[in-house]
Order: sequence, then structure tokens, then C-alpha cells
Amino acid sequence: MSSEFELIERYFQRRAGDSATVSLGIGDDCALLDVPHGQQLAVSMDTLLIGVHFPHNTSAFDIGYKSLAVGLSDLAAMGATPAWATLSLSLPQLDSNWLADFSDGFFQLADHHQITLVGGDTVKGPLSITVQVHGFIPSGAALKRSGAKVGDLICVSGRIGDGALGLKMALGEINTQSKPLEKLNRPEPQVALGLALRNRAHSCIDISDGLAADLGHILKASGVGALLHADQLPLSQELQQQPRAAAEQMALFGGDDYELCFTISADFLQKLLTQKSLPKITLIGQIEAEQGLRIEHHGRIKTLSPNGFDHFEHR
Amino acid sequence: MSSEFELIERYFQRRAGDSATVSLGIGDDCALLDVPHGQQLAVSMDTLLIGVHFPHNTSAFDIGYKSLAVGLSDLAAMGATPAWATLSLSLPQLDSNWLADFSDGFFQLADHHQITLVGGDTVKGPLSITVQVHGFIPSGAALKRSGAKVGDLICVSGRIGDGALGLKMALGEINTQSKPLEKLNRPEPQVALGLALRNRAHSCIDISDGLAADLGHILKASGVGALLHADQLPLSQELQQQPRAAAEQMALFGGDDYELCFTISADFLQKLLTQKSLPKITLIGQIEAEQGLRIEHHGRIKTLSPNGFDHFEHR
Repeated sequence: MSSEFELIERYFQRRAGDSATVSLGIGDDCALLDVPHGQQLAVSMDTLLIGVHFPHNTSAFDIGYKSLAVGLSDLAAMGATPAWATLSLSLPQLDSNWLADFSDGFFQLADHHQITLVGGDTVKGPLSITVQVHGFIPSGAALKRSGAKVGDLICVSGRIGDGALGLKMALGEINTQSKPLEKLNRPEPQVALGLALRNRAHSCIDISDGLAADLGHILKASGVGALLHADQLPLSQELQQQPRAAAEQMALFGGDDYELCFTISADFLQKLLTQKSLPKITLIGQIEAEQGLRIEHHGRIKTLSPNGFDHFEHR
Repeated sequence: MSSEFELIERYFQRRAGDSATVSLGIGDDCALLDVPHGQQLAVSMDTLLIGVHFPHNTSAFDIGYKSLAVGLSDLAAMGATPAWATLSLSLPQLDSNWLADFSDGFFQLADHHQITLVGGDTVKGPLSITVQVHGFIPSGAALKRSGAKVGDLICVSGRIGDGALGLKMALGEINTQSKPLEKLNRPEPQVALGLALRNRAHSCIDISDGLAADLGHILKASGVGALLHADQLPLSQELQQQPRAAAEQMALFGGDDYELCFTISADFLQKLLTQKSLPKITLIGQIEAEQGLRIEHHGRIKTLSPNGFDHFEHR
């Protein structure tokens, strides 16, 4: 590693912060970390590439922000409290403006969620960012994909489809207001909701690949099926201004929303909704014994595959 | 992620193995892991690029092996017991032969050290491999860079300089026997030695950047200096066949050796050397109060910088 790249490391090291659970942070062969007694460790690693996970015109700030946001969203989906992050940056050249903006984005979110940067790597190569997040969960309390039960209500947080609408805007395909673009670039990981769902929700996942695909993962892992109601999908004002079919397509198959989709009993949903400071939560369907994912639209029921509508059926 | 890339994930998932400390492995938003009570967690992340960290003609098996080996070497340098790995692969295309060979190399070393693959990512992009390793150390027993004391003896494991000689062979600059090339491509992380050094060595680092640079990290972190003896450097037969100046250059500045360099009291070194099944250990110098790194050669003393000889001095 060149001394230039060592400078980068020191730059990140200076802003890494500290925490009672970090015995030794950046600067030795390994970081030394303490998991509190009675807690399990949740970890998730994601690699993000420009042109694949970000449109080419994404700002360095937004790249830094989103590199951490996708991992925090995984922690939220398990009901974990964020603790530490590691960051590996592959950079084609040393651009101090880019790095300053990238780290501003990264640390804005890191500081907000009190997640400490404890290590990583910096190499010279094609632009690529790998982040691993680490969080704590009381042993046995994690929200898994595999716990959905027949009769569970299916809920999502916030609005869905704006990630896909934002991408169309970033690519210049649609010109509308800037909100969905902001949501694409700076999604808000639903960490507080994940914590509120512990010991309440039966299953949970974050919406990264699209509602149909991600709910599909819950159904497969739990061995159940589901029926959604198209009219219940929580669409933003901007998305409602699009043609209805296109809007539904983006909400169901778009992805990049980083909202939570969870299944819960009616009793627990009622209790959850009395809690303050939670994001908007919308009931969109229920878990059924019959395998597969279906959506009801004015009394007609269609079967959904993870990537599109499969066929029509009536019942 | 395309379904092709999901196939890759399933391929790795199948060989990931299991462990009593893994509550939930690959396949949910996060892995769920248990750190045994009384143990600290040591983590290290490395990104390896073809053409930077591997010569372009490196086999997929060796890339898989070495991607894990460099992290295991970091765990060894802290005295940690390997536990879990995460792996993110950026691949330009789906080449099942390459993947089979890569994973053979990765899992050969993983199985040998009983380290469990618990998660990661697979993306389509320029070839790049990021591995994070996780290990356990009884709280407070980690070997750090910062503990070297004046009067400590400086030791290295195995032979040094073969990484650099192997690289010259891989690049076609030198044609000699294949052993150093094997050592470059399949370094043996000194995990057992790291465990034996717990509560004995005062400081430890693995030799990745070169003896002078890595020992320099210990000296800086500990606020001390050192004197090495050129004649004591443990050089392989192959390296000894090179011109002496070139051989020393490779041993001091070459890197990619993944041996351990540690400082220890004479008493504890004596005890260590009575232990069975340890690698070759060579005494190469001692820690001094005077800052800086020096090397003695037939009574003459030179000052070393991390990357080369700085100047001569007599004393």
C-alpha cells in the first residue's frame, strides 16, 4: 500500500469514533471487539459497484451514505442494534475531494446510528466499496425470514416503489420531483422499527430486491404462501402520479426501497401501532397456507413470481 | 442479483460447513453468531485485486487459497483462534471452472483451520475479492504491536524473502526452483505459533509489507528502536543462491511472507523453544531504547527505513 493510501486510512481512522465495545480499533493486524454478554452478533457484508448499484452520476456523498445504509438495513431487518462497521475501498486514484465527500456521507449515517468504524482496507483499483456491518441482538430474539405463520398479517414500513422511480429519474427516463431520487440515494434504514419488532414480528426482511422477491424469500423460508391487496400498497404522491400499472410494477418488483416487510399477529400489530415515533406502517396482506404469492386487484387474483406477473386466476 | 449469481451463492453455501458458534449462516439478512463468554472478537478485512496482489497468471485455486490466507495470518499475529469468514466476490463473468477451483483453494485452507464461511456477497464486476476473518482471543490476551519492551529479543518464524523471490519468478524475472513460488501463492498462516505466543510475546505482527516495514510498525506503536543482525536473517536455500545483497533486499523489504515477527523476553523465548510442533524460529535482533531500525553487518551498522537503506553509521 502506498503512503498516499495510508493517508486515506489515517483520514478515516481520525473520524472512526470510539465505543465501549471497541478494545482496539483501526491500526493493528486486527480490531479487538467485545460482544456484551447475552447478546448475539449479527453480521452482513455488501459490495457496491458504480454503474451496478449506483448510477454513474451518483455523488460521492451519496455513495458513502448508501454504502453503509444497505448494511444498516440488513441489521434493521434482523432487529439488531448497530455496533461496528468495516470498510474496504478500492479506488482508481486519490481524489481528496471525492474522499472528503464520501466520508462525509458515510460518517453522517454512522454517527446518526452510533456505529463505529473499526477496520478495513484501501487498495488501488476499479471503484468498489465493501462494507460489513455488525450488530447486537439479545440471544434468540433475532427476526428471521423463516418464522411466518399462516394467518399472520403482512406489513411494510414507509412507501414502496420510490427506489425504482428514483432510479428512472437518475437515468433520465422520468422527470418529476426530487423526493424519490433522494430516497434512492439516501434511504433511511429502519433500525428503530427493527428493534420495536423484536419479540413481536414472526418474520422480517428488508426490501432491497423488490417486495415480491423479498416477501418471496420469507414465504420460501417459512414454507407458506401469501395474498396481497394491490389497493393497500403504500405509494408515494410522486409514484401515484405515474400510470397505475407502472406504479404497481415499481412497488412490487423495483427494489432499492430499504423499507421493512414483516409478518405479525393481529394482536401484536395492534400493540405495535400504539407505540410512538414509529414510521408509517401499512397492512398489505396476509399469510396463507397455500404456497405462492398472489395479489388481489378489484376482486381478481394474480399470481406473482419474484420478477413479474405469472398468470391470472379467479377464485 | 441475477439467478446465475444466486447459484454461486448456493455453491459456496453448500460447502460453508457449520460450527457450534454459528446460530444462522448464509441465507438471511444477517448471519447470527455467538462469541464464547470471556473471549474477545478479532476481525480483519482485506481486499485482493488481480494484477496488484496476485500476478495475472495466478491460478484460481491459489487466488482462493491466498484470499483467506492473508486474513488468517492477521488472526495469527494477534494470537486469535480462527472462527468465521465472510467473502465478497466481484466477478466479470460466470466461469464455473474458475469458481470450482477458487472455492477448492478457499475451502482447503478454511477446512484445515476450521474457519466457517458465514456470509458475503457476489456481484458482477472487475475481479476483486474481499474477505473478513473473525477469531476468538481470551479477553486481554491479544498480541498487539504496541507491547515491545527494551531488551526484548526479536524473532521471526520460518524463512523470509521467499515471497519476494516467488514474485520475481511469477513475473519471469528469475528462473529457479518452484518452492518460493509455492510460498508466494500458498503461504502458511502461522496460527499455531500465534496461539503459542499468547501470554509470552510482548508484541507481534505478520510480515506482509516486508520485515523492515512491519517491524517498523511494532517500533512505532511501542515507542522503541531495534538492532537486527544481517547474518541471522533466515533465508531459504533458493534465496541464498541469489546474490547476497539482492537476497537481503528481498528478506528486509520484499513482503508477502506471512511469517510472524515477534518480540519476547529471553526467559519466555527459552520456554517457547521447548514446545513441540512449532515452526522454525530464528532470533534476529533485539529491541533498543534508541528510536529507529538498524541492521548490523560484519560490525557495520546501517539505518533502515521501511522501504530501503537510509544511510550508514558506525558505532
